[in-house]
Amino acid sequence: MNNFTFKNVTDIRFGENRLDTELAGVVAPFGKKVLLAYGGGSIKNNGLYDRVKRALKDYEIFELSGIAPNPKIDSVREGQQLVKENDIDVIIAVGGGSVIDAAKVISIAKSYDGDAWDLVLDSKKATAQMPIIDILTLSATGTEMNKNAVISNPETKQKLGTRTLRQPDVSFLDPSLTFSVSKWQTAAGAIDIFSHLSEQYFDQSEDSDISRGMIEGIYRAVIKWAPVALTEPENYEARANLMWASTMALNGTVGLGNVNGWTVHPIEHELSAYYDITHGVGLGILTPRWMKKALSAKTLPRFAAFGRHVWGLSGDDESVAGEAIQATFDWIKSLEVPTTLPGVGITDTTNFKAMADSAVAVGNLTTNGYVSLNSEDVVALFEASMNNDGF
Amino acid sequence: MNNFTFKNVTDIRFGENRLDTELAGVVAPFGKKVLLAYGGGSIKNNGLYDRVKRALKDYEIFELSGIAPNPKIDSVREGQQLVKENDIDVIIAVGGGSVIDAAKVISIAKSYDGDAWDLVLDSKKATAQMPIIDILTLSATGTEMNKNAVISNPETKQKLGTRTLRQPDVSFLDPSLTFSVSKWQTAAGAIDIFSHLSEQYFDQSEDSDISRGMIEGIYRAVIKWAPVALTEPENYEARANLMWASTMALNGTVGLGNVNGWTVHPIEHELSAYYDITHGVGLGILTPRWMKKALSAKTLPRFAAFGRHVWGLSGDDESVAGEAIQATFDWIKSLEVPTTLPGVGITDTTNFKAMADSAVAVGNLTTNGYVSLNSEDVVALFEASMNNDGF
Repeated sequence: MNNFTFKNVTDIRFGENRLDTELAGVVAPFGKKVLLAYGGGSIKNNGLYDRVKRALKDYEIFELSGIAPNPKIDSVREGQQLVKENDIDVIIAVGGGSVIDAAKVISIAKSYDGDAWDLVLDSKKATAQMPIIDILTLSATGTEMNKNAVISNPETKQKLGTRTLRQPDVSFLDPSLTFSVSKWQTAAGAIDIFSHLSEQYFDQSEDSDISRGMIEGIYRAVIKWAPVALTEPENYEARANLMWASTMALNGTVGLGNVNGWTVHPIEHELSAYYDITHGVGLGILTPRWMKKALSAKTLPRFAAFGRHVWGLSGDDESVAGEAIQATFDWIKSLEVPTTLPGVGITDTTNFKAMADSAVAVGNLTTNGYVSLNSEDVVALFEASMNNDGF
Repeated sequence: MNNFTFKNVTDIRFGENRLDTELAGVVAPFGKKVLLAYGGGSIKNNGLYDRVKRALKDYEIFELSGIAPNPKIDSVREGQQLVKENDIDVIIAVGGGSVIDAAKVISIAKSYDGDAWDLVLDSKKATAQMPIIDILTLSATGTEMNKNAVISNPETKQKLGTRTLRQPDVSFLDPSLTFSVSKWQTAAGAIDIFSHLSEQYFDQSEDSDISRGMIEGIYRAVIKWAPVALTEPENYEARANLMWASTMALNGTVGLGNVNGWTVHPIEHELSAYYDITHGVGLGILTPRWMKKALSAKTLPRFAAFGRHVWGLSGDDESVAGEAIQATFDWIKSLEVPTTLPGVGITDTTNFKAMADSAVAVGNLTTNGYVSLNSEDVVALFEASMNNDGF
């Protein structure tokens, strides 16, 4: 097990309808001037916007709306200007990962005098962070309990991750707020969680049995409950398990002791950056192909454990490993999302080389992955994603 | 899944030999006057005492030594007087759960003007807490990342848990510091961890699949590595997995969403309070008997899941559940600890009724357990622990 340092300060408020009675109280220590950050109109349509405003009736509220999926640096710049000009005390982010990620970079941009994109390119430029409270409406990214943020820059065709100085101060996790999440976004979120687990499960550390054992348990819950959430969108237990899975999969806990970095996320970020596709759907296309590429005599025991403890398979290592990869593909397909690049509208192959070069560079994939990938390997993954041959 | 609130602020420094270079730095923000709390002479014999003193050469150190297993309120009172009289800034606890638990109650006793035992009887009397840094030398209680402390009062024959205001500020978890832990304490610690997992796994909540899945993974790691640590005391990976298991089993994470309280711990606390036996060994005696008592048509599915996901058993629910309980007993026995009360020197049955009454009262066992236990049930558990009949 590798050495690690771990501290996660987020105050989690998990459960139904807690914000109405608790939000005002948790904001109080931070000040009176609030930036309310959100995305499109959905929180206005479903009443959440009104509930938050009612809870904050004693606060001075400034609004930043229109934060898009794959949040763009322009929204961050707009927020930076708002918090600076009005000397705002605290950000309340209401939404999914995109809104919260934008809020996070705004929170470190208040005390930064340059362009906010600098903070995405180099997280070391952050020196202070405003308090952040979030109200999560989508189970996917885990941003509600980590320091990370992913921001896109359409001008430079970059989608990059950065790190803030600490986790959100308070996260309200109300599963019932995800009842209205579409099938598409529910599936994409579940696949995102599955991928976060995979990026940490397939790791070169040999004896991280605590982390890996916990991951296996979370995997099983996601595999079980995602299909239920699709067919019964208001099933509280399904939504609760997916929500807590999203948090636990990426609050740092289950990757402790790990050796290597992530692989599929840097590759998918290229797809999202170039084509603005849904992140989780992109991960779902790439993951089974990556697994086939990663399977070797050396990695066979890990894939066999994945098959036994996650998918409940039995048999010899080779058959269990193969069946586990197929089961992964079948589960993703069962969530009714496209499983090929043409399925999400990507039919030309002209950008494959440029995207592969960038993924390898950003993710240090030749040296930093569970299995080493060079640019040709990544191009091959893209090419294998053009159809479902072999699955 | 039940609602829950979760916040855990401990800064974990996991790995070998970090205290020498990091301890002085983490103490610095808290002040210059340090209470160094420890137990017997073992840390002097193995050089740890000298390393800590060397790391703290620029600090003013006061010492509280002689904190015993099942830490006594008198040690806490002595510490309370020291921190008050010398206006000490921070406590550094070097040891296992007993030392850290005593330090925790001292940390809330500095600002309390009455007898420290009051704070054990009623945690609400605590109003402020000194910073605590611990250097863990025994993998067992999980105190290194939670608010809890268990203190004994030999005068009143009470062993009671209380809660401080926050978790330790920093915990150094160095698996190599447990290389010298005896077979007895290694086994007792592993059983303690196993019991913490069981107290949370056997829970009335139906759909806490995330927490329960994580517990299953940690169980497997403990079952695998405890025997290795017994036969190869300097096996780093064994010690690392047990150490991180002890923390994860009781830092709050894997009990989130739970419904009911603990059962076996309150019962064992009576044994320790009356006979000063090793806590983990007492838990090992009681746990398989409690499992037999708890198994019913209603609880069968949970015990069957326990058998399948923890012990890797297959078959119908009834056989898997029965085999899982037997496997639990066999594993405990394989750790070379006594599996009966006479084995730890308890041969008279005269205190059974008084201990049972107290356990039921303190643990609210009739209303608050996974299965309801009254005083007669607890007496029956003690009686069943007089021999190994049935195992």
